[in-house]
Amino acid sequence: MALLVMKFGGTSVADLDKIRHAAAHIKREVDAGNSCAVVVSAMAGQTNQLIAWTREASPLHDAREYDAIVSSGELVTAGLLAIVLQSMNVPARSWQGWQIPIQTNEVHGAARIMEIPCEDLKERLGRGEVAVIAGFQGVGPDNRITTLGRGGSDTSAVAVAAAVGADRCDIYTDVDGIYTTDPRVVPAARRLDRISYEEMLEMASQGAKVLQTRSVEMAMVHRVRLQVRSSFDPPESCPSATLGSNNVPGTLVCDEEEIVEQQVVSGIAYAKDEAKVTLVKVEDKPGVAARVFGPLADANINVDMIVQNVSDDGRTTDLTFTVQDTELDRAIKVLEGIRDEIGCETINGATDIVKVSVIGIGMRSHAGVAAKMFQALAEKGINIQAISTSEIKISILIDAAYAELAIRTLHSLYGLDGA
Amino acid sequence: MALLVMKFGGTSVADLDKIRHAAAHIKREVDAGNSCAVVVSAMAGQTNQLIAWTREASPLHDAREYDAIVSSGELVTAGLLAIVLQSMNVPARSWQGWQIPIQTNEVHGAARIMEIPCEDLKERLGRGEVAVIAGFQGVGPDNRITTLGRGGSDTSAVAVAAAVGADRCDIYTDVDGIYTTDPRVVPAARRLDRISYEEMLEMASQGAKVLQTRSVEMAMVHRVRLQVRSSFDPPESCPSATLGSNNVPGTLVCDEEEIVEQQVVSGIAYAKDEAKVTLVKVEDKPGVAARVFGPLADANINVDMIVQNVSDDGRTTDLTFTVQDTELDRAIKVLEGIRDEIGCETINGATDIVKVSVIGIGMRSHAGVAAKMFQALAEKGINIQAISTSEIKISILIDAAYAELAIRTLHSLYGLDGA
Repeated sequence: MALLVMKFGGTSVADLDKIRHAAAHIKREVDAGNSCAVVVSAMAGQTNQLIAWTREASPLHDAREYDAIVSSGELVTAGLLAIVLQSMNVPARSWQGWQIPIQTNEVHGAARIMEIPCEDLKERLGRGEVAVIAGFQGVGPDNRITTLGRGGSDTSAVAVAAAVGADRCDIYTDVDGIYTTDPRVVPAARRLDRISYEEMLEMASQGAKVLQTRSVEMAMVHRVRLQVRSSFDPPESCPSATLGSNNVPGTLVCDEEEIVEQQVVSGIAYAKDEAKVTLVKVEDKPGVAARVFGPLADANINVDMIVQNVSDDGRTTDLTFTVQDTELDRAIKVLEGIRDEIGCETINGATDIVKVSVIGIGMRSHAGVAAKMFQALAEKGINIQAISTSEIKISILIDAAYAELAIRTLHSLYGLDGA
Repeated sequence: MALLVMKFGGTSVADLDKIRHAAAHIKREVDAGNSCAVVVSAMAGQTNQLIAWTREASPLHDAREYDAIVSSGELVTAGLLAIVLQSMNVPARSWQGWQIPIQTNEVHGAARIMEIPCEDLKERLGRGEVAVIAGFQGVGPDNRITTLGRGGSDTSAVAVAAAVGADRCDIYTDVDGIYTTDPRVVPAARRLDRISYEEMLEMASQGAKVLQTRSVEMAMVHRVRLQVRSSFDPPESCPSATLGSNNVPGTLVCDEEEIVEQQVVSGIAYAKDEAKVTLVKVEDKPGVAARVFGPLADANINVDMIVQNVSDDGRTTDLTFTVQDTELDRAIKVLEGIRDEIGCETINGATDIVKVSVIGIGMRSHAGVAAKMFQALAEKGINIQAISTSEIKISILIDAAYAELAIRTLHSLYGLDGA
């Protein structure tokens, strides 16, 4: 008998039929004797409607009021799912963020969960009541509603799982697991049975959109085992969550020790929403990087990859970096404002680029992964504009036109293509 | 400088344009130096959508979950109105029912407000912050959301006005005040400048739909002066709420001492949503009424007017009473089940009736009001099927076909027609 947290995203609770389908998944686990805390998102589309109203009310809206408004969608789904469960004779009760309470810090719109005092919740779970918890939200130190940022329900689920000491946290979503890469780009992509926290974190932050990056971080810190699975599977035919069972559908995100056969490369992620900025002929002298990136940080613009070449003439150099494509115009405006200080010739922005990342904890013990990559791409005539690496990841920036070709080439190169 | 509570119903906050219009009314009062607590309903249509989902989830839904779901609409309007006020440089903050808290009893779906500890609220009002409060909702003793029943935002507004000691409670709605009768039926109907609590209570409970009955009761008990006024008036041209001012548009519901020139009859209400039940040839012996009305009360069916005639033969009698038309089928089913016990010949139900009520505190000191009424109706050939009276009200039951004729006749009879 396990203690499970089950999370259903917006597309999995988009209407009453889908909510009933989710309830059938929950009933299966309850019937198997498991205790279940369920975290739900708002019905697909509801949050966007609420955000649209908020923007219509005032483009410069108060973050506190934004949170109070936008968090209401989850209350509706939590109540509806509780009612549906009750109608199936499954004891259930909905919980709003403040009722548990899910205590967060005061950063409205992107709050962090600080603590979840859950004695009451655990006691009710213990006597077989399903707790249906409104995701994405909490309550700040001043007793005002906070929200956790887009996709925050994943984080809610992981935080609840950590707080109640769940045996596993099942993320029910509209895909059936984590793939070696996007199957729309590479039809030969395979679903992974298991992936380590570290790899999943890189996959999520390098562009894979299945899980919110912060939820993976939190799962890694608290060692919460995450199962990513499809909410559209027929609920009856899924085996219930026997612990350690290998036949639960989907992908288990877990400690690398739980993964017996490590691959060198586990997956390939890509992000098309980056933009490249190049400062041509920047003065090559100490402090120039600080003068460029300080003002960008002050303007709250996140800089991702940075490349600086050795200068040809010893006096000037080209500096290239990437930002979110939605931030490009703001970034260029900031740089134009400090152009004289940094003394560069031209400032170029481009959005026709893609970042491709090769990820695998096997890289730690295998040399030559990057060299193999660069050679394979060179053979296809793909020019690499920037490179950035971590212990378990190599990211490159290339012309967007070559995205699919590069991803397919690498997927095949590292033996990820399915049978 | 006054302390005002302002309430805006669903049609007055139906979209962002209407919310901006409501905000302009609030800004006018703030600019005049008044402190304002605002109570809002959900955007028109939202609550119905939420109720529909709840019913779709399960016809026999849990009242606790119903409340959690249905109360979410008000959170959205409260937040949006706060944002709009802020954008107009009016300091504002939204309040959910549990945040104040509006403490209620545990009767979900029809909770009663027990207490509103509002030191924090008063302190913020005192320093010029507009409090935008989600109406219709509170929090029960077990920390679960409760709702106050349909139209409950009126009650929220009056309760907040009583708690903060407001000088007046302005109910902004889609009509511009209380009329002598429904202007759609009698074009000569006049808007009343003032009406006493007692009269308003009878008007509301006898069919006038402008104010929720319970809100009038509460206003009477706590002596909260209520101004019923139109939210569609141009906000700029309305005089701000100078106390005691006679030029505030709408109708003031107040203590009868505040009404200088009392009319014998102040208004005529009607209700078309009643149904008549007649038990033909019931045994005429002690205890029969208890045997009829006991089971109806147990089934939670509200009985309004009751008429029992003297029996012709000394052994049987006809018993007539009214219920809500939506309850007619249930009432007849209950009665069929006890038919043998009460020993009646036939049970007839009819919905083609209307209840017309003549209301006025002047009746207390004027004789012959009823006699005049009966004669005028007899002259028009209108048959009275049942009569019920209180100190300040005479209600009659007539054939629905004669409703308009009866109302116009009485309106003219008591000198209510406008110039």
